[in-house]
Amino acid sequence: MPAIDLNADVGESFGQWRLGDDPALMEHLSSANIACGFHAGDPAAMARSCAAAAAAGVSVGAHPGYRDLAGFGRRFLDVDPAELRHEIIYQVGALQAMARAYGTGVRYVKPHGALYNAMAHHTGQAQAVVDAVLALDPALALLVAPGSEVMRLGLAAGLKVVGEAFADRAYNPDGTLVPRSRPGAVLHDPGAVVAQALDLAVEHRVTAVDGSRIPLTAQSLCLHGDTPGALALAAAVRKALEDAGVSINSFA
Amino acid sequence: MPAIDLNADVGESFGQWRLGDDPALMEHLSSANIACGFHAGDPAAMARSCAAAAAAGVSVGAHPGYRDLAGFGRRFLDVDPAELRHEIIYQVGALQAMARAYGTGVRYVKPHGALYNAMAHHTGQAQAVVDAVLALDPALALLVAPGSEVMRLGLAAGLKVVGEAFADRAYNPDGTLVPRSRPGAVLHDPGAVVAQALDLAVEHRVTAVDGSRIPLTAQSLCLHGDTPGALALAAAVRKALEDAGVSINSFA
Amino acid sequence: MPAIDLNADVGESFGQWRLGDDPALMEHLSSANIACGFHAGDPAAMARSCAAAAAAGVSVGAHPGYRDLAGFGRRFLDVDPAELRHEIIYQVGALQAMARAYGTGVRYVKPHGALYNAMAHHTGQAQAVVDAVLALDPALALLVAPGSEVMRLGLAAGLKVVGEAFADRAYNPDGTLVPRSRPGAVLHDPGAVVAQALDLAVEHRVTAVDGSRIPLTAQSLCLHGDTPGALALAAAVRKALEDAGVSINSFA
Amino acid sequence: MPAIDLNADVGESFGQWRLGDDPALMEHLSSANIACGFHAGDPAAMARSCAAAAAAGVSVGAHPGYRDLAGFGRRFLDVDPAELRHEIIYQVGALQAMARAYGTGVRYVKPHGALYNAMAHHTGQAQAVVDAVLALDPALALLVAPGSEVMRLGLAAGLKVVGEAFADRAYNPDGTLVPRSRPGAVLHDPGAVVAQALDLAVEHRVTAVDGSRIPLTAQSLCLHGDTPGALALAAAVRKALEDAGVSINSFA
Repeated sequence: MPAIDLNADVGESFGQWRLGDDPALMEHLSSANIACGFHAGDPAAMARSCAAAAAAGVSVGAHPGYRDLAGFGRRFLDVDPAELRHEIIYQVGALQAMARAYGTGVRYVKPHGALYNAMAHHTGQAQAVVDAVLALDPALALLVAPGSEVMRLGLAAGLKVVGEAFADRAYNPDGTLVPRSRPGAVLHDPGAVVAQALDLAVEHRVTAVDGSRIPLTAQSLCLHGDTPGALALAAAVRKALEDAGVSINSFA
Repeated sequence: MPAIDLNADVGESFGQWRLGDDPALMEHLSSANIACGFHAGDPAAMARSCAAAAAAGVSVGAHPGYRDLAGFGRRFLDVDPAELRHEIIYQVGALQAMARAYGTGVRYVKPHGALYNAMAHHTGQAQAVVDAVLALDPALALLVAPGSEVMRLGLAAGLKVVGEAFADRAYNPDGTLVPRSRPGAVLHDPGAVVAQALDLAVEHRVTAVDGSRIPLTAQSLCLHGDTPGALALAAAVRKALEDAGVSINSFA
Repeated sequence: MPAIDLNADVGESFGQWRLGDDPALMEHLSSANIACGFHAGDPAAMARSCAAAAAAGVSVGAHPGYRDLAGFGRRFLDVDPAELRHEIIYQVGALQAMARAYGTGVRYVKPHGALYNAMAHHTGQAQAVVDAVLALDPALALLVAPGSEVMRLGLAAGLKVVGEAFADRAYNPDGTLVPRSRPGAVLHDPGAVVAQALDLAVEHRVTAVDGSRIPLTAQSLCLHGDTPGALALAAAVRKALEDAGVSINSFA
Repeated sequence: MPAIDLNADVGESFGQWRLGDDPALMEHLSSANIACGFHAGDPAAMARSCAAAAAAGVSVGAHPGYRDLAGFGRRFLDVDPAELRHEIIYQVGALQAMARAYGTGVRYVKPHGALYNAMAHHTGQAQAVVDAVLALDPALALLVAPGSEVMRLGLAAGLKVVGEAFADRAYNPDGTLVPRSRPGAVLHDPGAVVAQALDLAVEHRVTAVDGSRIPLTAQSLCLHGDTPGALALAAAVRKALEDAGVSINSFA
């Protein structure tokens, strides 16, 4: 029976500013990537997310990012790898303590935003993330893009590396994502999103923008919670997967 | 044979800005209070401090503060106790992970600056710190001022609470510190500082500003590292204690 | 013909996080208090608010706060008056430049949140705000609570000091606001809010919580934009005032 | 009679953390680049620098940087040009107000650190700085590297653009600086630094690392204040220039 994990970013509020409807989104997930305070999230938000994940039986992942609240971690920052390694240890460690305080634990690490993107090719920063995970707990999984530099380095280091795919993003024929700056990069039609989710989860392939069908093996699908209609779409994806006999399970 | 712990604040650099000579100071300590990033310290500084403490065989303590880099945590901040509790979990958790990564572990928590001062009387914030320690690890000790509200609450919660005294601060007849704003609050004469250290460690008493000798039991003496002559004074205090047959041991 | 100013806090977004619907709120105002980056607001948000205020013909006021993004400036911070003075100059100066860049100018200063509250009684911090305004531009008005320490000090310094009242807050018989922690502190019934606005603008008095009618002279009414129904309420207050022949004019 | 400006970065303290000996350095300068709070500097530090510059008769320049306190603005940050433009307006505006409060005014803008470096080639960010200066005050000069993209764009926009050179940095034969990562990038021999300063100020040329003498016209020399021996070196450079009949004048 086919199985897949459903993950999404949560806990991205900060102080007075709230983002997303985490408790509602959490119902549709098997894994929650919780922001750790550097690009978003504060200790109270982390606590709320850990409590909600524990209550929902959802796996907790750390979602560390660049130290850039003003930019929400979405801007490349040329941080030195040694410093980045320490920043990842700091962020994940803070979440580990919070998760323990709320009766759960951190199972994996997924880099955020521009750091996630840099992981595709920036060897120094990618190795820093791998080294941080090794220093924190070698049993932590690393959730990243298939084919990325960090996947290669993580596997070489003996880590459990999990590839993720996107139900709502268009793919190039080489398996990379169409950049958000291009038209058609994001799928808005719910039917198309659901169809792509099924294709990925059951057939392990996806239809690229040129119409070619390419193989794409991902153990997790990333859902989004912060756009209009996101909750309904997440629910529809989950229901379609379950109706097709796909088991929704955390990889962790 | 009498014994006492010697603690000091370390790791209070931030980015490009450096403060104190931690490796030199560490030689004289049995316990190092490491800043956790909210009032001072950054992940790289925490890593340096953990590595130095591990190398020197010094106990690592977490030194969390108010979220106030601009004020170095020295200004009272009326933070909600529930939020403060999460902020303490966050800071100490980050240090726990860093300490593990450098082969050591966090043994105790000592609040910093204005938070330390608020612990003397602010029941809500003091309980928040106690609750954070309980949530983090009930085996962590709490290093605070004798007679403070947080000592009372920590003991009531069943925590190991350790009182500290100051070799270089003047005491009122009731055992409280003379506020820094008063003349004579800080002892500058090395001979007087050494004498007070011996009095505290061996006799468990101190001479108050009015000349009266009062009992004061402290398991730890706090040294300072960021003032001119501080390193020489720390060395002198330690040597005098050892010469008097006092064993310098971490309480943890 | 009676006249009154209508002010509200705007520009309180930060980076990715958005708060309030400023352009819609701006239509109902004669004065906009623009956050300056310390408790909320960032340069881009300030630019949007200045542009919107200029387009709507609304007076621009600076809304400086404590340096506390995580707490939204709503927590008392025991900042040294000399430092606070410089922080106010910094924040207002940044907004002055932004306002000039968008074809308008800063006309007044209204402290935010916990700083606003401290202005009622904290002589050192109140004098710091007065001194900052004097150093920035003695022609700037100061928008504060009637009867506050800062009003007294501002008048003594020769500043133009403008008192504001709240259409949606309950008053004590002595003219102070019922604290938010008390039941009934905030009026939620639109009819009651509109009635209180009319009472304040036309009769210069208000009905206190004990039923007594007390005199209260305010040149400005503060509206809120960040609560459910706030925009409709702001529109209703403005319409009722205009229907009653009250002219809505900036005091600046 | 030849003339040159001597500039240096000042005001780069933050809160409790102090950097450099600004009052001593100021004696040797004709222009002081004052940090504006984003990479370093806080309102109180800016006030101290403005007061010192006013007292010493030194021209005040704004020294804005990336929003990156933890990295001291020395790491490239891929900030959107529109946001950068607003961040420059914010920083310079804050300094303008502070300078006015201390009896002086901002005469020029010099970008800091990684932003300065990006100005050499990053058209979007360079245009953002030019646009910010135009919006702030077209009479402000722009102090940048000769041959940089921002110099080209600034001149095209009609700004007064001033080129600077370094007495203590090695030059490539094409007039660019030898990167700091290369051996020999920084001149440490005081005699060599003084000789290069004279060469630049009097002959408008410099000896490149390959021994070739290349023309280099700069209206300002940048001195450093934060390295050991920096003050003595600054004094030596200034004395040698004056002894050679070079007038030390601000370009502003």
